[in-house]
Amino acid sequence: MNEQHQHIVKSHDDEQTALRDTLIYMGQLATSQLESALNALTQRNAAAAHEVITNDERIDALEQQINHDAIRLIQRGPLASDLRVILAALRVASDIERIGDYAANIAKRSLVLNQSPPLSHTRGLDALGRMAAHQLRDVLRAYQQRDGDDALRVRDADAELDALYTGLFRELLTYMMEDPRAITPCTHLLFMAKNLERIGDHATNIAENVWFLLHGDTPLPPRNKRDDSLKPVA
Amino acid sequence: MNEQHQHIVKSHDDEQTALRDTLIYMGQLATSQLESALNALTQRNAAAAHEVITNDERIDALEQQINHDAIRLIQRGPLASDLRVILAALRVASDIERIGDYAANIAKRSLVLNQSPPLSHTRGLDALGRMAAHQLRDVLRAYQQRDGDDALRVRDADAELDALYTGLFRELLTYMMEDPRAITPCTHLLFMAKNLERIGDHATNIAENVWFLLHGDTPLPPRNKRDDSLKPVA
Repeated sequence: MNEQHQHIVKSHDDEQTALRDTLIYMGQLATSQLESALNALTQRNAAAAHEVITNDERIDALEQQINHDAIRLIQRGPLASDLRVILAALRVASDIERIGDYAANIAKRSLVLNQSPPLSHTRGLDALGRMAAHQLRDVLRAYQQRDGDDALRVRDADAELDALYTGLFRELLTYMMEDPRAITPCTHLLFMAKNLERIGDHATNIAENVWFLLHGDTPLPPRNKRDDSLKPVA
Repeated sequence: MNEQHQHIVKSHDDEQTALRDTLIYMGQLATSQLESALNALTQRNAAAAHEVITNDERIDALEQQINHDAIRLIQRGPLASDLRVILAALRVASDIERIGDYAANIAKRSLVLNQSPPLSHTRGLDALGRMAAHQLRDVLRAYQQRDGDDALRVRDADAELDALYTGLFRELLTYMMEDPRAITPCTHLLFMAKNLERIGDHATNIAENVWFLLHGDTPLPPRNKRDDSLKPVA
């Protein structure tokens, strides 16, 4: 390998590393947005909610940057394995962008909830949200370290999130039936719970993209302990 | 241009046309799934609902095929404009796949609703769904004909869908407050309405991808008559 070639290869590697770093940063930002939205909800902190809503633009801008960088890398005619890495980055960026939207939506709904008296039912939502944030951190680590086994573990753990969501959904319905004044705020909690369940689905998508970038189109192994009856009709 | 080169160019064009045709077929299937799900709901037809749920696999398989074909095309090192077409196809396929999921979810929820007495409130949902299906047809035509102006019109019309959704959302809340027995079925209708509003968002995404494949990163013109207060907190 001559020096010129070495230089090109190095710069190529650097750019892929930069793409990965931007994506990890984007994912960490989305996770912290989710946690801030949950704090804004439980503490009824309108200023914090507004900050989450404003910050969502930064996540959108990072997705644009990743799209732009990925297209430039693709135009250089990458090897098949590198192309998989780039395509996975595009998909993961799109998943993280959606996660950011859901976090911002939770912040928006927390502002609506501040207009009604405090509800104790936000505790269950907070627990669901913390589990979703945990899933996100785990899948981002699996992505960063290219760890297919850890990615599959995140995918398997999604069933627990679904079960928690389904329980919370039923609980919120009973509150609504007991007290008509709880209907409007609990409806917002239902949609926030749904957002968190969807964040879990996006974490699963990211896990499947870690598998794709490592193994291409080789089918994923079947899910462990997956009970489809737990999967919410939602 | 020699014969060999002509042959290659033709085959390249053919493959891009095949990609577009598969995508249009996938989009038509998703639209018809949505309409079948709405029929299953209004006619309380469990067999039709099950058919929609089963058919969703076909949409998922088409997305896999498009991903596969697109990767093969990318590996040939396309021109920048062709690369845009291919990347847009990947994104549009992902949007259509989600639309199919939402249609299947509406069918699943219709089965749950069949367990309660008939509700008159399904009419508003049906109207919302027909408008979403209309948006889908329009954006697929814009995609097929590479018509940027028509795509922008679909994007603008999303505000009407949002307004209809917001009205239906409020209406369903009042039914729930009037009659606690309506809470569970109306919650399903709320989520179905949300699915339809999201289908509208995906139609908007597709419209923006028509713009991208025609104009690259040139920013889209501002939306016409867009009143952000109409955008649901959802």
